[in-house]
Order: sequence, then structure tokens, then C-alpha cells
Amino acid sequence: MEILMKPIGYIKSPYKEKGEAPRQSTLSGETTAVIEILEEYQEGIADIQEGEYGVILFYFHKSEGYKLMTLSRRNNQVMGVFSTRSPNRPNGIGLSTVRFVKREGNRLFFEGVDMLDNTPVLDIKPYIDPAAVAD
Amino acid sequence: MEILMKPIGYIKSPYKEKGEAPRQSTLSGETTAVIEILEEYQEGIADIQEGEYGVILFYFHKSEGYKLMTLSRRNNQVMGVFSTRSPNRPNGIGLSTVRFVKREGNRLFFEGVDMLDNTPVLDIKPYIDPAAVAD
Repeated sequence: MEILMKPIGYIKSPYKEKGEAPRQSTLSGETTAVIEILEEYQEGIADIQEGEYGVILFYFHKSEGYKLMTLSRRNNQVMGVFSTRSPNRPNGIGLSTVRFVKREGNRLFFEGVDMLDNTPVLDIKPYIDPAAVAD
Repeated sequence: MEILMKPIGYIKSPYKEKGEAPRQSTLSGETTAVIEILEEYQEGIADIQEGEYGVILFYFHKSEGYKLMTLSRRNNQVMGVFSTRSPNRPNGIGLSTVRFVKREGNRLFFEGVDMLDNTPVLDIKPYIDPAAVAD
């Protein structure tokens, strides 16, 4: 079974090369970046509000191949890849929780960037705090 | 640009048809389900611990096509798809936060199931609470 995906847009990020981006989006502070949504999908972001949190799913376009056991940068141990956020994973999907600060036409400005410039965006989802929902 | 993905495993769920699954994984309480990881990827789950939370990314295999404006089941309003968790989205990726309760070989038992039976799994990631990291 093969599943085909297409970018819905691309990230414009200040980080141009591997090693420049922070380890996690929450470590990037108030650095802002932009998602440029392709015109055909622009209507889908119409209800994203300024100040709101969201989840961006993206494609690790600079990663080649994967390792099932890999060094976790969180605890400096070699771990199974599915316990890590390594970019070298069987399907190269990245996930970042970000805060949207502005929407201008097809451009979504956000804080919490840990993606490289020109990263293809696969999806955007509302952030739902599991603890809050369970309450 | 086209991106090709392959399942790393499949969900065995008590929900067989659309409409049976709860709206969100956190609403499914203690119902358990299983991820059966394909043998070639099994090493990657070696460090997933019982009791730990994780994020499952999966493919909405029963969804056909997408709508950019869609009814949000969260607030019963028509909204841009990227403000909803609709299964009818440009790339059919679903995201659920779950709690792993047991690991047996290639089988991961979890609570928080909102996926249909035989759903293809694309990725598993550690759950990282953004608020906790920011502290």
C-alpha cells in the first residue's frame, strides 16, 4: 500500500540549514516564520485566529532514509525512533505545535518555528490539549 | 512535488464503520485498541513504555476527497478545514494522542482509540506537552 501526499504550502523560515533550527518548536521563543499556503487550499485557513495554537504537520525534505535506533537529543540515549522526534524516520513527517500571530491572505505568521526554510507543509490542525478535553 | 508514504503498521480497533468511532481520542475513555507494527519497523518501538503518552499519526483510509469548508463537530459551525479535525482533508492524515498500556512484541496496546479498524499507521511520536517544555 502506497499513500501519495502533496504539499498544501511551504514554510518560510530563518533556518536555512540543518543544525540551525532549534531542537523543538517550543524552544524557539518568539522567532516568527510564515506558512505560505498554496492558492488552491487558501480557503481552508479562513478560520485560523490570531493568538491561537495549532499543530503543523510537515515533511522532512532534507532527511535521507531512516534509522530504527537513533540518538535522542532529549536525553542523549540511543532509542527506538518512535520514542524520538528524529527527522530520519520511516515516513518523514514532522510535527510542531506553534502559535499563530497573524493571517494575511494566504500567509500565516507563527511563533514556534523549528522547521527549515522551504519545508513542505502537509497539514494544519487545531491544537487540543488532551488534559483540557478530559476535564 | 509528490511525497510517497507507506504504513508502518495497522490499527486493530473495535470501531468497524464510520460513525462508530468517538469524535476525539480523549473521549474514548479506557477502550483499548492495538497497533500491529510491521516486522521491518518493530525495533523502532523498543523504547515505548507502558503508561506513557504518545501521538499516533495515521491515514484516513475510508475518506474520499476533501472539503475546504466543513462542519466542525466541536462547535457545529462551518469552518475552514484546517481549523477542524475533519477526516476529509487535503492530505488525509489523522492525529490522536493516546496512552500506551502494554507492549508485546510488535503489538502496542493503547487507550484513546478513535480510529477505525485496519487504519494504516504512518508514524508514532513521543507526546511532549508544550506548556511543560516552555516552563
